Amino acid sequence: MRIAICGYGNLGRGVETALRQTKDLEAVGVFTRRDPKSVQTLTGIPVYPVDEIDAHRDEIDVIILCGGSATDLPDMTPSLAERFNVVDSFDTHARIPEHFAAVDTAAKKGGNTALISGGWDPGLFSLARLYAQSVLPEGSDCTFWGRGVSQGHSDAIRRIPGVLDARQYTVPIPEAMEAARKGTASTLTTREKHSRECYVVAEEGADLAAIEQAIKTMPNYFADYDTTVTFITMEELKRDHAALPHGGKVIRTGKSGLNGEHHQQIEFSLRLDSNPEFTAGVLVALARAVGKLAARGDHGCKTIFDIAPADLSPLSPEELRATIL
Amino acid sequence: MRIAICGYGNLGRGVETALRQTKDLEAVGVFTRRDPKSVQTLTGIPVYPVDEIDAHRDEIDVIILCGGSATDLPDMTPSLAERFNVVDSFDTHARIPEHFAAVDTAAKKGGNTALISGGWDPGLFSLARLYAQSVLPEGSDCTFWGRGVSQGHSDAIRRIPGVLDARQYTVPIPEAMEAARKGTASTLTTREKHSRECYVVAEEGADLAAIEQAIKTMPNYFADYDTTVTFITMEELKRDHAALPHGGKVIRTGKSGLNGEHHQQIEFSLRLDSNPEFTAGVLVALARAVGKLAARGDHGCKTIFDIAPADLSPLSPEELRATIL
Repeated sequence: MRIAICGYGNLGRGVETALRQTKDLEAVGVFTRRDPKSVQTLTGIPVYPVDEIDAHRDEIDVIILCGGSATDLPDMTPSLAERFNVVDSFDTHARIPEHFAAVDTAAKKGGNTALISGGWDPGLFSLARLYAQSVLPEGSDCTFWGRGVSQGHSDAIRRIPGVLDARQYTVPIPEAMEAARKGTASTLTTREKHSRECYVVAEEGADLAAIEQAIKTMPNYFADYDTTVTFITMEELKRDHAALPHGGKVIRTGKSGLNGEHHQQIEFSLRLDSNPEFTAGVLVALARAVGKLAARGDHGCKTIFDIAPADLSPLSPEELRATIL
Repeated sequence: MRIAICGYGNLGRGVETALRQTKDLEAVGVFTRRDPKSVQTLTGIPVYPVDEIDAHRDEIDVIILCGGSATDLPDMTPSLAERFNVVDSFDTHARIPEHFAAVDTAAKKGGNTALISGGWDPGLFSLARLYAQSVLPEGSDCTFWGRGVSQGHSDAIRRIPGVLDARQYTVPIPEAMEAARKGTASTLTTREKHSRECYVVAEEGADLAAIEQAIKTMPNYFADYDTTVTFITMEELKRDHAALPHGGKVIRTGKSGLNGEHHQQIEFSLRLDSNPEFTAGVLVALARAVGKLAARGDHGCKTIFDIAPADLSPLSPEELRATIL
């Protein structure tokens, strides 16, 4: 199966290296809005201008879209789904229904298969919530993120005047995770579940107190959290905060028995040295599934909820039953 | 959707109470090999002789088979799959391929949908292995069971002369779980991964040393493990060991990046006060999916690997995308 990578940031590079770990999937090349001559791929696969992607239709089975959810994917995914089978990692939870509708219309029009919102949240964490809720219908679940770098929150800090660069870590609060395991987390506030640690490089002579105040009071991003701000040098940022670790947990507890007398607990957790490379691993497995669905004529927009698990694997159903079940 | 329960031991009772937690599924009744008059259900649902189940064909959408894997299910599942949609929890891993083949033939012949090997292992743990292997193809995983009661091992002890009753706990070894998180568990022996704790009630005057020796040297069951044997009274067994807790973990680690420089870890764990009631919760969700597949004309034998996650949920695809994804 021949996979194209559209967009070549951290996620695109992650997909490129993840494809090297598969035997049944092959990287056709990278498609970029930049000047292809300015882009050097990690593994030497070719780079093409995204405008010319239609000329490669016969060489591509599935495109993995590695753009951002804010501005790239809302247009790019429906547009390409009309001509190609595609996978994206659209992660703006609140806008998933409208994105789904746009991509579904386009994919059906073109007779293609598209999958949106792949990754780990949305993605594997969504699956953990779905399986756990289906199996323990009387209960509650809670999702924790981190400790890890939130790119969105890091970007928000960078937009504050006087800030040169920043890295924000989302940190789950251990007491809240314990409450989730006991089934008593539903009353916890946002502040009680996560805290936020910010490492900020300021311009020389910047008003540090004003920057700290601007961060801590920023609505949606920081105002509802206990936030710490630590000013560091650019050298320290590059030395100590270059990686993009992340992770988290979905914890669901429920009751079973005639009178709900038994406590049952399901926990799914990730601990990732590299968030984009792990997300890429999920997208690559989903691209395999999309290729299989497209070959079966199962068109339109899908999410990870619509994909039979066996379709993610390179193994045959017989092999899966004999070795993993 | 109308669900029948075939077999009324711990698992059957778990299914009965699990069905009370659903709005879209309804318990039709229990079918048993015992004299129906001798069986009193927990929630008052009717009891019928299993021999007369064909007379209830028009009242049943899916049967959940709550028999044992050793002697009941190999015959019962194919036999009933010819006339009904069925779900079972066949858990003899090594015999899954032959059981699948027999059930698939029967279900296709009857135009029905069957699902085998539902539960948590095989079942949710199998899913955890499949998703994790698909997403992290270069890595290794390890499954740990317990701390929990193994019915098979408890039964094996009960068959020793001089033993009145017994309870066996399978216990994962913490150091092995740590090794699995580091990705170094593949060299561990059986003995290094789990230990076994046995609580045994002996007949008065029995040779305790002989019983202990018979347990510890029993091939397959105990010989390969560090096993402790504690003799207790029947009163203590009933007071301290009446529950059927279980659980465990699937841990997979893998490498990502151009040179495998990043360590990624996925962990799925269960902590269950009641093993049969949790297994029942999985079977009930799978019965919902089987009913949906049957209604779509998707016949033959399936496993949890073939079921799109959305089919396990009572929520619509739109609701799932809007609320859980």
